[in-house]
Amino acid sequence: MFGRIDHIGVAVTDLDAAVALYEQTFGMPVAHRETVESFGVEAVLLDVGESHVELLRPVSDDSAIARFLERNGPGLHHVAYATDDIEAALERCRAAGLRLIDERPRRGIRNSRVAFLHPKAVGGVLTELVQPAAH
Amino acid sequence: MFGRIDHIGVAVTDLDAAVALYEQTFGMPVAHRETVESFGVEAVLLDVGESHVELLRPVSDDSAIARFLERNGPGLHHVAYATDDIEAALERCRAAGLRLIDERPRRGIRNSRVAFLHPKAVGGVLTELVQPAAH
Repeated sequence: MFGRIDHIGVAVTDLDAAVALYEQTFGMPVAHRETVESFGVEAVLLDVGESHVELLRPVSDDSAIARFLERNGPGLHHVAYATDDIEAALERCRAAGLRLIDERPRRGIRNSRVAFLHPKAVGGVLTELVQPAAH
Repeated sequence: MFGRIDHIGVAVTDLDAAVALYEQTFGMPVAHRETVESFGVEAVLLDVGESHVELLRPVSDDSAIARFLERNGPGLHHVAYATDDIEAALERCRAAGLRLIDERPRRGIRNSRVAFLHPKAVGGVLTELVQPAAH
């Protein structure tokens, strides 16, 4: 169902400092930077193998990332798995009785289609399904 | 410095239930199961692309995973990046002034060599360097 880890999502307060750490010390090239208004975040994707680190800074106070930071401080926020067919993947999760946050895929970063599973359904792990945009 | 995400580490209370979810619903094959006494955990690795999901159940009450579960409940615990030269990677982190948990690599799962960076040095993310065993 999943081809790879698409990315790990990391909540940060200082985006430029985080980018500097991952880029300069960890040697991960910046692949993309985008403000995703529907999620209330500014996001930076850095390459690592076939995956990315996604650094997320809130741009609105009522975004999920802002609430996460308030509750937990910066740190690991979610993991995303890549799929070629997000409808089928979501249906499989629904059929298994997993609680969904998104009943239908919505637009994510870089015109991907994404859907989140509820962390309570995945042992406390906020889990995202991602179907990257066709190139 | 890092070739790929080696694994994401997930703290669980019920290992068999977690394995069933990742294997049967998410379709990730179990690659390895091992009790790593030095870390006080029973661990299961599942394949996803070039990475793994590592499910971690404490086998001793004073393990880091037991303390994490007590504080946070089950969920995302750490991320590990693969390197071909853990001494060089650790030295680069040290030279950048990052606080280390392990000053020297120690033995991890499947005879890998591992070292943890302090989460305070990596924006709240517990970060592991892994040099897999040579095959």
